[in-house]
Amino acid sequence: MGALTAEAVGDPTAEAVEFLHLYHEERRLPGVAARVAGVREEIAVTGTYRHTGDELTYGAKVAWRQSARCVGRARWAGLKVRDRRDVTTVAGMARELAQHLAVADNGGRIRSVMTVFAPDRPGVGPRARIWNDQLIRYCGHRLDDGSVLGDAAQVAMTDAVRRLGWRPPAVPGRFDLLPWVLETAYEDPTLVPAPRELVREVALAHPAYPWFARLRLRWHALPVISTMRLRVGGVDYSCAPFNGHYLGDEIGTRNMGDGDRYDQLLPVARGLGLDTSREDTLWREHAALVINQAVLHSFRSAGVRVSDPHTESELFMRFCAQEERAGRPVHGDWSWLNGSVGWAALHAVHHRYYDPRVPNPNLWQTGRAYGAAGVVSATLRQRHDVAGRGEG
Amino acid sequence: MGALTAEAVGDPTAEAVEFLHLYHEERRLPGVAARVAGVREEIAVTGTYRHTGDELTYGAKVAWRQSARCVGRARWAGLKVRDRRDVTTVAGMARELAQHLAVADNGGRIRSVMTVFAPDRPGVGPRARIWNDQLIRYCGHRLDDGSVLGDAAQVAMTDAVRRLGWRPPAVPGRFDLLPWVLETAYEDPTLVPAPRELVREVALAHPAYPWFARLRLRWHALPVISTMRLRVGGVDYSCAPFNGHYLGDEIGTRNMGDGDRYDQLLPVARGLGLDTSREDTLWREHAALVINQAVLHSFRSAGVRVSDPHTESELFMRFCAQEERAGRPVHGDWSWLNGSVGWAALHAVHHRYYDPRVPNPNLWQTGRAYGAAGVVSATLRQRHDVAGRGEG
Repeated sequence: MGALTAEAVGDPTAEAVEFLHLYHEERRLPGVAARVAGVREEIAVTGTYRHTGDELTYGAKVAWRQSARCVGRARWAGLKVRDRRDVTTVAGMARELAQHLAVADNGGRIRSVMTVFAPDRPGVGPRARIWNDQLIRYCGHRLDDGSVLGDAAQVAMTDAVRRLGWRPPAVPGRFDLLPWVLETAYEDPTLVPAPRELVREVALAHPAYPWFARLRLRWHALPVISTMRLRVGGVDYSCAPFNGHYLGDEIGTRNMGDGDRYDQLLPVARGLGLDTSREDTLWREHAALVINQAVLHSFRSAGVRVSDPHTESELFMRFCAQEERAGRPVHGDWSWLNGSVGWAALHAVHHRYYDPRVPNPNLWQTGRAYGAAGVVSATLRQRHDVAGRGEG
Repeated sequence: MGALTAEAVGDPTAEAVEFLHLYHEERRLPGVAARVAGVREEIAVTGTYRHTGDELTYGAKVAWRQSARCVGRARWAGLKVRDRRDVTTVAGMARELAQHLAVADNGGRIRSVMTVFAPDRPGVGPRARIWNDQLIRYCGHRLDDGSVLGDAAQVAMTDAVRRLGWRPPAVPGRFDLLPWVLETAYEDPTLVPAPRELVREVALAHPAYPWFARLRLRWHALPVISTMRLRVGGVDYSCAPFNGHYLGDEIGTRNMGDGDRYDQLLPVARGLGLDTSREDTLWREHAALVINQAVLHSFRSAGVRVSDPHTESELFMRFCAQEERAGRPVHGDWSWLNGSVGWAALHAVHHRYYDPRVPNPNLWQTGRAYGAAGVVSATLRQRHDVAGRGEG
C-alpha cells in the first residue's frame, strides 16, 4: 500500500480506490473490483460516495494506526467506532457525545472510542462542528488582575462561550467544566452544558507526601479529542471525536507543569522544600517527578486506566516491530512520540527511522471555530447557505 | 546565503565560491572577486585550494553555528581554532592533541577549542585519523562472564587497541583511560598513551546523599569529539577534533543512566530505597534526577564548567532569535536539541520551525576506523598508496 503524500491528498477517486484496495487486502475480502466500480459510478453521479459501516470502521482504525504523533496506536485494532453519520442535529449530537463519554468511561476501565458524525459536504465543508478541542475541558477565567484561574490554554474558549451567553459560576474555580458549543449546517452554534454526571475526575494525591492532596489538584479521566478531521478514502469526517486513555505525563508534565497551563512546579517545589533559587538544583525536574508520581498513583488507586511512559514506549516499540512484520511502513513524528512520554531521554522511543511520507487514511487538525479573543467567524450554516446559493 | 542540500555538497568550486562570499560578507571584507578568481585558478591547477588562516577559523566557527544537533552553538563566535594543517606525523599529532587538552581545560574554566590538522587529499581521503571517537574515553572491558566493566559503548574500541598491542591494567577498572590510536597517510595506526596528567576528572557526590559518593562514580571534564569531519568551502578536514563543555544531562542521563553505558539507575534507586518492582513508581526518573543533581553539584564544586538544561535551552532560544535578526535560517534537529537536554518535555527548546536544508560549512560524522569486533579495515597509508599507484 503506497502512502499518499500530503500534496496528493485531494483526488477523492484515487484515494477511494487506494483505500478500497487496502481494506479488501488487509481484511482478506473478495469483490474489490466490483466495489471500486460501484464507488466510481457513485462519485461520478453524486460527487462523493458513502462508506459501508465496516469500511468506515476499518478506515478509522487505520487512521489511528497511521497517526504519526500518537504513541498509543498499538491499540488501533481495538478502537470502538460508533457510526453516527445520520445524526445531523445539535440535540442528536449532544445525546451521542454524552453516550460517547459513558461508553468510553466504562467504569474507569477506559475504552478507545470514536464517534463519527455526518461526512463533510464536498467543496463546502463540515456539516457538524464541536468548538471544544476536547469534550472535557476546564475553564480558564481571566481575572481582573490579568492572571488566569483554571486552564490558561482555555481562556479564548472561555471568552467564546461567554460571548454566546454562558454564565460562569458565581464563584469561579480552577476546575469548572466548559460547556460544549455544537453547531451544524442547519443550526447556529449552540451552548450545551457538559453532562457533569458522566465526567469522571480523579483527585491527585501522592503516596509519600500528605501535603500534596492539600494542593487540591484534580484531572478528568477521559481525553476526548474533538477537533481532528478523519479522512478515509477521500471522504472527510470533520466531526469525529475520539479518545484513548491518558498517559500520566500528559497530565503530570504538560497540564499540571507547563507555565501556560496550571503552572504547578513552584507550588509543588515549595511543598517539597526545594531550593528554587537556582536552576541547577533541578527543582523543576524534581517537582515534575513528584506530580507525575501523584498522577499515576491517584489514577491507579481510583481504578482509572492510565499509562506510565515505560510501559507505553515498550508497547510502541512492539507496535513498530509488528507493523514491519506486516510489511507496512511505520509513520512517526519522533518529537511528538517522545514528547508525549515526557522524560524523553530516559525512555525507549528510540531514535529510529520513521517513514516521512504522510499516510492515508489519517487524522488532521481542523481549524478553530473561534479567534484568540473568543470571537466567532462564519458559522457552518452561513458557509453552507453561501454554497447553496452558489449552486442555485 | 543559500544553504546547499546534502546532495549538492560535492562541487568544490561552487562551495568555495559560496563560502568566500559568506566569509567576505559576514566579516565585511573587501576583495571577494579577486579572492574568488585566485581560488578558481588554484583549483584548476591543483584540484583544491588552501584557506587562509582567517578563512579556516571563520569557516570552523560557521560550521559550529550551523550544526543542527548542537544546543550549545550560541557560543560559536568564541571558538578557538588552532590551525595545525602542517602537522602530518603521529608524533606531531600526539603533541598537538595533548596541547588541545591543556588549552581547552583552562584550569576547569573550559574553553571551546578546535584543532585542525591537514585537509583530506581530494579523491583519496583523510591524511590523518584519530580512532577514538572522543579524546577522553574510558575502556569497556569485556569480562569472562560476558558482562562489561567500564563504558559498554567502548568495548569494540577496547578490543581494537588490544589487537594493536595495548595491555590493559593488571586490575581492570571502570574508568581506565583508553590510549589514543593515531594514523597518517605515511604511518600505520599507532598507540599513544593518553596524557593522564592532562585529563581532569570529577568524582561524583550528591549534596544530600552521602552514600552517593560510595558508588565511586566519576567523569572527565572535557568532551573532545574527534571523529567529525569539518567541511568548509568544499575542503574536507576529516581530522579536526573539537570540544565545548558538558551539559550535565550528557553525563547524568546518557553516560551514567543508559543501559548500554554505565547503567547506574538501579544502583542509585537502591541507594534511595525506591520501589523498583513496578515502572509506575517512576523510580528510573527519580534515580536519573539524583544522578543529574550529583553531576551539576560535583562539577560546580570542583570549579569545572558545566551547563544545566534550563540555562542552556534559554541560551539556545536567544541564539535562534539572534540568528533570525541576522537574517540567517536556523538549522535544527529538534530530537537532538531536545534529547541533549535530557528531560525534553520540561524544557524550553520549543517545538519551533527549523530550516530543514543542510547548511554548509558543516560538521559530519566520519566512518569508524575499526569494526564491531575491533578489527581494522584499510589503514590510511594503504588507501593513499593505492591512490598513488593509480596516479603513477
